This record gives sequence, C-alpha cells and structure tokens, in this order.
Amino acid sequence: MRIAELSRESGVPIPTIKYYLREGLIPAGERTSPNQAQYDARHLRRLRLIRALIDVGGVPVAGIRELLDSIDAKGENLHNALGTATHATLAAAEQGPPTPSQARAGIELDALMAERDWDSDSARARQMVINALATFFDLGEDDLAVLLPVYADAAALVAEAEVGLVSSRSDVDSAVEGAVIGTVIGEQVWAGLRRLAQEHYSNKINTTGPDEGRDDRP
Amino acid sequence: MRIAELSRESGVPIPTIKYYLREGLIPAGERTSPNQAQYDARHLRRLRLIRALIDVGGVPVAGIRELLDSIDAKGENLHNALGTATHATLAAAEQGPPTPSQARAGIELDALMAERDWDSDSARARQMVINALATFFDLGEDDLAVLLPVYADAAALVAEAEVGLVSSRSDVDSAVEGAVIGTVIGEQVWAGLRRLAQEHYSNKINTTGPDEGRDDRP
Repeated sequence: MRIAELSRESGVPIPTIKYYLREGLIPAGERTSPNQAQYDARHLRRLRLIRALIDVGGVPVAGIRELLDSIDAKGENLHNALGTATHATLAAAEQGPPTPSQARAGIELDALMAERDWDSDSARARQMVINALATFFDLGEDDLAVLLPVYADAAALVAEAEVGLVSSRSDVDSAVEGAVIGTVIGEQVWAGLRRLAQEHYSNKINTTGPDEGRDDRP
Repeated sequence: MRIAELSRESGVPIPTIKYYLREGLIPAGERTSPNQAQYDARHLRRLRLIRALIDVGGVPVAGIRELLDSIDAKGENLHNALGTATHATLAAAEQGPPTPSQARAGIELDALMAERDWDSDSARARQMVINALATFFDLGEDDLAVLLPVYADAAALVAEAEVGLVSSRSDVDSAVEGAVIGTVIGEQVWAGLRRLAQEHYSNKINTTGPDEGRDDRP
C-alpha cells in the first residue's frame, strides 16, 4: 500500500508517519519510484503499536525507541525486556540527596522487599515508590502509607500472572513483545478497574445521603 | 512569611506561586502593604499538595482545580470526592462510535462487573479499561486480555482497603482529602511496586542466561 493508504488504515496523519520514518521508528518502505514507496502489514502493525504505546499507554515519544529496540532485538530475553519497559516508561529519578521523607520511605520499601524476598533493583521503579510514599508523609497523610503491603500484594498478584503468561509463549520474541505491551497497557487496565472498584466500595459505605455536596458546586 | 520564604520552603519558584495565586489555586495572602502579603502554613501545605499532584501524581494542571474544589467543599462526601478524583485525573473519553475491538472490550468489562456486582458508572474509568483492553485485541495480543479478572482482583483488593481506610477517619473533610490524595498518589505506589514484582518473578523464570541480548545493544 502507499503512504496515503497506510495513513487511512492506521488513522495516523501522513506527516506523523513521515516523522516516524525519518526517526527510524518504522522501517522504510520499498521504493517503487524516486517519489513512491510501498508499505505492508508490518508497517501498519508497527504504526498501531507506536500509537497504542503513546495514546493509550502514555509513553513519552522519547521512550518509544527504547521499547521498539527491545522488541526488535532478536533473542532478547524476557527479563531484560521487562527491565527495558520499566526504564523506557518511567522518568529518571531526580538527582540530589533524599529528603527525610524519602529516606523514611526508602527504609519502609527495603523492609517490605526483604520480607518478601524481592530481589529487584530497578532504580526507576524504586524511586517511583519512594517518591509517592514520601509524598504521603510530606502531606501529613502518613496513615495512607500503611496500605503499602496491600499495594504490594496486589502488585505481586498481577506481576506473577503477567510474567507467567508471557513467559509461557513458545516464541521468545513474542514473549518479549507481550511483556512490553502488557506492562504498558496492563497498567491502564488496572488503573481503570481500581477507580471502578473504588466507586463500588464507596457506594456501599456511603451513608451521608445521595449526592450531597455535589449540588453546591459551581 | 513573605512570598520569597514561601518559595524557599516549598521549592516552588516565585513566578509559579504568582501564577497559582492569579488562578485562585492557592488563597491570597494577607496584605501587609500595597506590595506585600504574608503567607502561612496553610499556603505552604496547599502549595505542596499542588506540586505533589502534578509532579508525583502526573495530574494535568487543568485537573488540579477540580481536585482542590472537591477537597475544599465542606461536607462533601467520600463517594463524590472519589468520583471527582476519577473525573479530574482521567482524560475525557473520545467521542465517536466504538470500534469492533472496543465493543468487544465493553462486553467483557460488562460481564466482569456483572459477575462481581460492581455498580460503578464512571464513564471515564470505563473508557480507560475499554481502550486498554481493545488495544490488546488490536495488536493481536488477545491472550493478555485473559488477565482481566486478575487485574480486577488486584484492583478490588486495593480499592476496598483504600475506601475502608479513608472512610474510617472521623472527620469527613479529612476523609475526602485522603481519598483524593490516596487515589492519585497510591496509583504511583502500586505501579512502581508492580515493576519491582515483575522483576522479581521474571528473575525466577529467566533461564536464557545472564543479560544476554543486552550486551548487543548500542
């Protein structure tokens, strides 16, 4: 197909496709004349993958190349692919010595991981947890931090199922691709379900009357 | 304290503070002269809250006002506050008829919710789950969608604990504030822990040798 059809099929505007081509995020088409190239199903799939990672997964464009490199690296193993997915989608930790709240959060996270025998060392994932926990402390919402083991139970439940599922794929390259996509998109599935579950449980607890307060809003 | 000290204490630059003042995100200080105003601990706390929601929680500035209004509405109930948190932090669903994948995802989500008796109707949370599930289908990663019940178990585990914790606070305004902060920041705690747990479980399964593949990277 020509670029116009690739654009129609994928819903991605032609200038955006040309940008991805220039950046090497999608492979060049097959030249059929000096001004024309042909594209096929692989290009379409790659384009859909890029848009899903950006639009649904919220991955910054800068992280896309790293994810695609990981997916494309033949013989890449699942463990490394998961590491890449974490690295490419989580912002780098800010430099600087930890604040007192971050130091306290680090101690709590270390204790949790030791208790559960988690041998993980992703600096970016650690920093994400520490910064969020430290925020509870900084805002005087210390009691929210007691949920740390509950968050960890839920995270372990999901992670074990995810790793088990993708590692059972017979083709390692397909497992790697599933790991990257599942990590990025699965987060959105969980986050949406959590909001729905919150609504369900707060419905059950809600005793202050129907929609009071909301009426006062501008 | 004067604005310079407020800036120093909070780490927020003076022009940003002035922007928040103009936008009414933080209340005006007490004027002590035509060119000076005094700020207190409430201003500092509000500033820290705004920065935490933006920097740690990733809330778009546009969603901040809605969250703050919810926190400030005296007598607001927990259920409404959670609804506001969902509304303010999740992007509006795109218009347009559902794609076949989205229609299929909607059916799967409805079945899941009926099975669990979830009586939630947040359109934004629903759309978030549906779009993510539909992405699995569109990318030919259908098997990842079988994890839906696992994601739901994990979401329910977290949501029930969260709602139980904040609703047990004796002061309803404090419960509302905890619900908003917990919803936004707790998501980051869970997401970081999931990556650490993935690393742990993939370490256990990883059998293709230490860091093969990674060595080939540029």
